[in-house]
Amino acid sequence: MRFVTIHRAGYNEPGIWFDDRVIGLRGAGFDDVISVIAGGADAMDRALRWIDRPPAGETLDPQTTRLAAPIPRPPKIICIGLNYRDHAEEAKMAIPAVPTVFAKFPTAVTGHRHPIVLPKNSTKPDYEAEFAVVIGKGGRHIPEARWRDHVFGYTIFNDVSARDFQMATSQWMIGKTFDTFAPIGPAIVTADEIEDPHHLAISLTLSGELMQDSNTSNLIFKVPQLIAYLSSVFTLEPGDIIATGTPPGVGFARKPPRWLKPGDEVAVRVEGIGELVNPVVAEP
Amino acid sequence: MRFVTIHRAGYNEPGIWFDDRVIGLRGAGFDDVISVIAGGADAMDRALRWIDRPPAGETLDPQTTRLAAPIPRPPKIICIGLNYRDHAEEAKMAIPAVPTVFAKFPTAVTGHRHPIVLPKNSTKPDYEAEFAVVIGKGGRHIPEARWRDHVFGYTIFNDVSARDFQMATSQWMIGKTFDTFAPIGPAIVTADEIEDPHHLAISLTLSGELMQDSNTSNLIFKVPQLIAYLSSVFTLEPGDIIATGTPPGVGFARKPPRWLKPGDEVAVRVEGIGELVNPVVAEP
Repeated sequence: MRFVTIHRAGYNEPGIWFDDRVIGLRGAGFDDVISVIAGGADAMDRALRWIDRPPAGETLDPQTTRLAAPIPRPPKIICIGLNYRDHAEEAKMAIPAVPTVFAKFPTAVTGHRHPIVLPKNSTKPDYEAEFAVVIGKGGRHIPEARWRDHVFGYTIFNDVSARDFQMATSQWMIGKTFDTFAPIGPAIVTADEIEDPHHLAISLTLSGELMQDSNTSNLIFKVPQLIAYLSSVFTLEPGDIIATGTPPGVGFARKPPRWLKPGDEVAVRVEGIGELVNPVVAEP
Repeated sequence: MRFVTIHRAGYNEPGIWFDDRVIGLRGAGFDDVISVIAGGADAMDRALRWIDRPPAGETLDPQTTRLAAPIPRPPKIICIGLNYRDHAEEAKMAIPAVPTVFAKFPTAVTGHRHPIVLPKNSTKPDYEAEFAVVIGKGGRHIPEARWRDHVFGYTIFNDVSARDFQMATSQWMIGKTFDTFAPIGPAIVTADEIEDPHHLAISLTLSGELMQDSNTSNLIFKVPQLIAYLSSVFTLEPGDIIATGTPPGVGFARKPPRWLKPGDEVAVRVEGIGELVNPVVAEP
């Protein structure tokens, strides 16, 4: 099952994307995708009945339907840094003994095919392909072995980063949380469709050129460890996003560096999840 | 004017605390303090009419009324590090050329007189007295000179920090965002009551002993600069909290270090704002 958020005039509507159709879920009583996630098995049953053939909801064409991020305002956007060994090496950073954690603010979120807006005040905007986990049932102190009970699904994330702001102080976040620097989507693929999240090809093309090409099997801290570690510190909630880190090939580590520029198109692909595409524009 | 959130059985209610009384605002049509803030001058007029003597709302005794944080779930909790020169020196950190920014997740928030829960997995829990700004009208690219147009008011913040987690990697946030590590309150004092936010005494006592004692005149980056800098990166929103940094005297910089322990009581005072008190308990 693939959950999306339909970008309507003036509001968002949760929806399900299956086969070649998108069905809106507002008529089934859902205001947003988080209410489906938080509603557990009952909510999922209600959504499934709504889209039974023939579906009760309006049917849309996914190719022409404008999407928002599947969760336009996640309760938390939890980012893991340096979680691919070879990316830590290209960044000349030590391999961490525990996960390196930072965040983006919800104002950074944007959706599939929405533009990444390059800030006027940064000269070093960069991309980072990431595989992301969407939390279902919340909790604190979740044991590693129970990780599957807390994953609703998976999506694709682009950890867009202004390297000049990121490196201006010891704390990276300010360079990571410009408006539009957290493209998410196009859809959340429910966990039952991904047998093993640690064997998925992940790649990024920039204006057609392959820049990152790896596999989630290279993650240093895997999904069970991340869920256990994070929930040992704070309460995970339905709709929280965990962006698991980026593989090598980012722009700042290239010689010469390759910064994002207006007119670029960034496409992040994760096997079994889909493709997240964003055009790049200058801030007006 | 002082805005609070009343902690009721099963829900929160926004309220105004004036003189020796707290008046609930639910009957005036407000679900939370953010809806007052976001409603601008019209909402403020409506709240004022509601509490006109005799007030239309229920009158409570502030000494016995249980409060939540004035904004229990801020859109953003923006923390500024190393923003007092002498604290940067005690932490052996360079004086920054631009603000050092990190965040806490909303799950960290707790209110006046609610316990700070010391995590089982940290041996170095610490306190940090902070003066905090509450954003009123949102915006992006706000000029320094327009800062007053965007400040709703001020409150008190305790940037509770598990130093072992904070220093385990390069990124501090994981040590700052344990559940209950963001006490806020007791009230938001509206901006009209604070002529100059850069001349306020700020202090912290730990179980009665004075540990921090400074003045917001020592802030390196002042409120106008912070609002301009932050909004050059992301959209500020009504109810966003900017915690402006802590003065010297924190526990980890003492010889020997003074960590928080069960049974402690932390009280942060800011001149003209009030006193934020939290007991300290062990995680069960």
